[in-house]
Amino acid sequence: MIKVGILGFGYWGPNIVRNFNGHEEIEVVAVCDTNPESLKRVKRLYPSVKTTSNTQEITAAPDIDVVCVVTPVSTHYDLAIEALKNGKHVFVEKPFTATSEQATELINLAGQKGLTIMVDHTFLFTSAVRKIKSIIDDGTLGDLYYYDSTRVNLGLFQHDVNVIWDLAPHDFSIMDYLLDCPPVAVSASGMAHIGKQEDIAYVMVYFANKVVAHFNVNWLSPVKLRNTLIGGEKKMLVWNDVDPDEKIKVYDKGVDVSTDESRYNLLVNYRSGDMWAPRVEQGEALKLEVEHFVDCINSKQVPINDGHAGLRVVRLLEACNESLKNKSMAVTL
Amino acid sequence: MIKVGILGFGYWGPNIVRNFNGHEEIEVVAVCDTNPESLKRVKRLYPSVKTTSNTQEITAAPDIDVVCVVTPVSTHYDLAIEALKNGKHVFVEKPFTATSEQATELINLAGQKGLTIMVDHTFLFTSAVRKIKSIIDDGTLGDLYYYDSTRVNLGLFQHDVNVIWDLAPHDFSIMDYLLDCPPVAVSASGMAHIGKQEDIAYVMVYFANKVVAHFNVNWLSPVKLRNTLIGGEKKMLVWNDVDPDEKIKVYDKGVDVSTDESRYNLLVNYRSGDMWAPRVEQGEALKLEVEHFVDCINSKQVPINDGHAGLRVVRLLEACNESLKNKSMAVTL
Amino acid sequence: MIKVGILGFGYWGPNIVRNFNGHEEIEVVAVCDTNPESLKRVKRLYPSVKTTSNTQEITAAPDIDVVCVVTPVSTHYDLAIEALKNGKHVFVEKPFTATSEQATELINLAGQKGLTIMVDHTFLFTSAVRKIKSIIDDGTLGDLYYYDSTRVNLGLFQHDVNVIWDLAPHDFSIMDYLLDCPPVAVSASGMAHIGKQEDIAYVMVYFANKVVAHFNVNWLSPVKLRNTLIGGEKKMLVWNDVDPDEKIKVYDKGVDVSTDESRYNLLVNYRSGDMWAPRVEQGEALKLEVEHFVDCINSKQVPINDGHAGLRVVRLLEACNESLKNKSMAVTL
Amino acid sequence: MIKVGILGFGYWGPNIVRNFNGHEEIEVVAVCDTNPESLKRVKRLYPSVKTTSNTQEITAAPDIDVVCVVTPVSTHYDLAIEALKNGKHVFVEKPFTATSEQATELINLAGQKGLTIMVDHTFLFTSAVRKIKSIIDDGTLGDLYYYDSTRVNLGLFQHDVNVIWDLAPHDFSIMDYLLDCPPVAVSASGMAHIGKQEDIAYVMVYFANKVVAHFNVNWLSPVKLRNTLIGGEKKMLVWNDVDPDEKIKVYDKGVDVSTDESRYNLLVNYRSGDMWAPRVEQGEALKLEVEHFVDCINSKQVPINDGHAGLRVVRLLEACNESLKNKSMAVTL
Repeated sequence: MIKVGILGFGYWGPNIVRNFNGHEEIEVVAVCDTNPESLKRVKRLYPSVKTTSNTQEITAAPDIDVVCVVTPVSTHYDLAIEALKNGKHVFVEKPFTATSEQATELINLAGQKGLTIMVDHTFLFTSAVRKIKSIIDDGTLGDLYYYDSTRVNLGLFQHDVNVIWDLAPHDFSIMDYLLDCPPVAVSASGMAHIGKQEDIAYVMVYFANKVVAHFNVNWLSPVKLRNTLIGGEKKMLVWNDVDPDEKIKVYDKGVDVSTDESRYNLLVNYRSGDMWAPRVEQGEALKLEVEHFVDCINSKQVPINDGHAGLRVVRLLEACNESLKNKSMAVTL
Repeated sequence: MIKVGILGFGYWGPNIVRNFNGHEEIEVVAVCDTNPESLKRVKRLYPSVKTTSNTQEITAAPDIDVVCVVTPVSTHYDLAIEALKNGKHVFVEKPFTATSEQATELINLAGQKGLTIMVDHTFLFTSAVRKIKSIIDDGTLGDLYYYDSTRVNLGLFQHDVNVIWDLAPHDFSIMDYLLDCPPVAVSASGMAHIGKQEDIAYVMVYFANKVVAHFNVNWLSPVKLRNTLIGGEKKMLVWNDVDPDEKIKVYDKGVDVSTDESRYNLLVNYRSGDMWAPRVEQGEALKLEVEHFVDCINSKQVPINDGHAGLRVVRLLEACNESLKNKSMAVTL
Repeated sequence: MIKVGILGFGYWGPNIVRNFNGHEEIEVVAVCDTNPESLKRVKRLYPSVKTTSNTQEITAAPDIDVVCVVTPVSTHYDLAIEALKNGKHVFVEKPFTATSEQATELINLAGQKGLTIMVDHTFLFTSAVRKIKSIIDDGTLGDLYYYDSTRVNLGLFQHDVNVIWDLAPHDFSIMDYLLDCPPVAVSASGMAHIGKQEDIAYVMVYFANKVVAHFNVNWLSPVKLRNTLIGGEKKMLVWNDVDPDEKIKVYDKGVDVSTDESRYNLLVNYRSGDMWAPRVEQGEALKLEVEHFVDCINSKQVPINDGHAGLRVVRLLEACNESLKNKSMAVTL
Repeated sequence: MIKVGILGFGYWGPNIVRNFNGHEEIEVVAVCDTNPESLKRVKRLYPSVKTTSNTQEITAAPDIDVVCVVTPVSTHYDLAIEALKNGKHVFVEKPFTATSEQATELINLAGQKGLTIMVDHTFLFTSAVRKIKSIIDDGTLGDLYYYDSTRVNLGLFQHDVNVIWDLAPHDFSIMDYLLDCPPVAVSASGMAHIGKQEDIAYVMVYFANKVVAHFNVNWLSPVKLRNTLIGGEKKMLVWNDVDPDEKIKVYDKGVDVSTDESRYNLLVNYRSGDMWAPRVEQGEALKLEVEHFVDCINSKQVPINDGHAGLRVVRLLEACNESLKNKSMAVTL
């Protein structure tokens, strides 16, 4: 039985507790939060779980094997380093840390101690992302041209980070997983209307071989959009994550460069064929993520969403902030 | 009767000829194109119209009052200057010219000669744009936060200009009309995959007062998207131009800054109310544009889409190219 | 504290238990099911609830005030009559009973004993239905012309009832609530492809004053549709229950009879105006239904979904079966 | 050169004239209408075409080979019989005739004289219907269960026929073509709200082998719906004719009868797989229909939409009216 302590029972914490609790090899032994109302809620739902407002009762508890850090990003490093020092595996909310130095330090310490770090890049465990991964990897799309993501909705505003740090970690981790290729430069634009942090922003990521990725993140949109277009040489894919039935559509569309170009707008020929929407299984991604975590701890396997994956996302986030401060100028990674 | 000569009968020219011909105060007297097939098509549809492959038979024809320049952008200046020199009013396809110097020169010459320039910013004459204009102007949205436009589809590739010069003039002219406020800086990112010109690009435009506009233009998208989100302090608007029935939706949604913020993610309160889709009339925009042109010529009125409007769009396009060459760094206007 | 016993923990039972259990004035004391796996699941989720496979341990238990009958329709009468005889209030799954005689008998017995019957017409407690009710009642739509409902999807096949008895009780109860007017005749068509019961069927209901209602119910549809059109003299309403954002749309559309009709297809004038989508609150209908049940028991109030409402639905279902047997001939009610 | 005369230049007539005129082997020589405005419009668009208000100048004109009857249905028989008597081929608007006797008489006369009758079942020439036909015929769907069509919108009201006679001929002719199997019985329900003719109606058609078809036709709908579901044993198809991009979707969904059915709602197993949207070409159906007509005349081939096809539709329409008068009772064909 793996004994788990959870730090933070705010917006996302209840899902973490429910899913860790639901795994048959896990026992959630304690939950910590500074808000007494949250702790009351824990008690009502899980009468046998210990509640506390003192983080050390979890990070230093002798009977706890795993610490989940589900607190604001500014606190991730302090809590995770304490847990690692005390020999605990850690499961850390995204984004992993506030700086890449912090991430590197956590990775190094976990390495020295043989402990597992998992960063909560939940989307990697959705059926949709898994399906897209297999469609890219089997060559269906051909060489990729671009990855274009829109993730906009109304709120939730946060005041310790901007909209890029809040929403883009999802997309950066998905892109990192799907493209499996290091980015070379990042440019970002944004504006803060309501508070001091950007509430609307756009990020361009450059890869080798002319692949580009673009991210539209916005806390001030009247409609919830979760659209990703992936353009490839052979086929093109659209992922609409708010469509309940047909999340992924693969279009047999594209362009073939024409050799004989007598007229100014006949540079290319267009292919336009059938569309195919593969079935996407339903099921809770977090459940699969917890299973992967347990497997990794048991078999000393490296999680696909390990500290390095977390670090790669943090580096992109840092580059965004740097570009934002420099008139959107592309930052080389 | 206003006598009109038209240069160019390729992709867009037939619509120009049909709409000018349909106006009861206009007589289309001649059409010029270098492609004999195009001229044959003119003859079949309009047996009484003269056809020629010599532009001077139009720009210098004594019986022609108005010259329409519906040719590739690289030729706009030469053809329009010749027409103006010969005392003709000109109607020029978008983008107005290849450089802002050319645009300025044409504006000055027309001014000296008392001639009218209209730049074909067709969208300003659509019912949708007119309706949005009235919704913004009557204060329904309150102070604006952002204007976010997506205009993507498969093709048509052009080889004398990039995707920004091809598609963004639509959006820049709409933004210019709706926001009625000078931009202060522009940043652009893009990539060329198929030819030498960027086929996918993103543009950020900054205004005073924290208003930003963003444009996603792409020749390599499997789906045709024409989405514009306009976020305001009071309400938010979504314009989906490919929706046949409900092109414009106004959402009573937004955020109110909260004064008492005890917890980290409670910076703001959200308003979420009804949605309203005003009726948008159907009808051909180009027809209304031609009527406006005739009115302007007859009454010596300045068109809303005059040479200055054309110049403002060209300046944005030039700034995009400059930013593209400078690692997306924002270019001050 | 109201003590509740629940009969049946199959597909819908878990929702009943969870919502009754969640009400602060209710204690769920026992759950009965014939399937040992179901009872194990009860024990895991609610360790303090008693489980049994003997219905009498619930219908005759001295410490139980309310019996919920969440079993196949063929068993409703026997279980409910036993509960009522023992002085329990009853909450019965839809459709209320297998025959109108059974329904009448239950109503009479409950009346004699001063007990409350609630039939689980859950949809009456959704925000969407409540909003539509207020839109009809305040005269927004004017006099109604028709109510046209489509409720189709793949499965779940049942073998004791046909698709009308399975799906149409939802729609009949909604129609009964919204139109608040007695139907005068019913015609039904259908076909059984997979089993012996109709798996696809269509029902027409006639009211006085030319109002008609139509129901399309189908267990063999590849797509899940939940569409209701309500046509009125002044405005028309579309309710799409699977749309997460804009469930209800009210169209300012209609026809005005023209007095001067010179030509054969100019009988009427069409009005086509704005569309309005009122905000629909989110929230679980069953929670509100349980609150209404508790209120009714406490204050001896008659539920909007009482036995008579259940009986009206059963009468329509019986008329459907009769029409199905008589070549779709309309059955007068 | 085939010389064509056209009777009727109202709502649909202009499309007929344009498409016949566009065929290179056809010359439209005369158009007849009782409305002088319509004839003026003809003259403006086709200066060389003769106009008349006297039908005999077309039906009896020695230089006319083909007569198109594009007038209200009540006049079809009189005009077509006159044309046939004078040795003309006829192209008749749908529905073919007002009674099946009239249709039979026209078929017989044309047969005796060796003349061609084509009934304007335009939809049979759309790419969508052709694609669906091939999907059914190649066995993709397996044995069919049902055909369920919704064709609703606001207007156009007609006063000589009800909504079934106006809209259902489209669907009856499509069904006739796709299912290629004689119906055995028809039931219809409807109501007249605005005029004396039914403006909303529902039709059920029974075939041998448990196949059923259902039609929802409505002149009083706020939204335009053109949805057809075709359920088969192996796969299921949805045709949404107002979707500009993905008109046809084929779902790998269905049910397999389970042999071991221990529990009441486990009668069947559900299959749920991928969806596939075949490319549907664009192009004007009427153009292809005119080409088919010319081919049939030239090669003495029988049109797929000949008089018999027209008669089969009229018989269904008559059966609908009979059922409407008999309380929806199914009428055996």
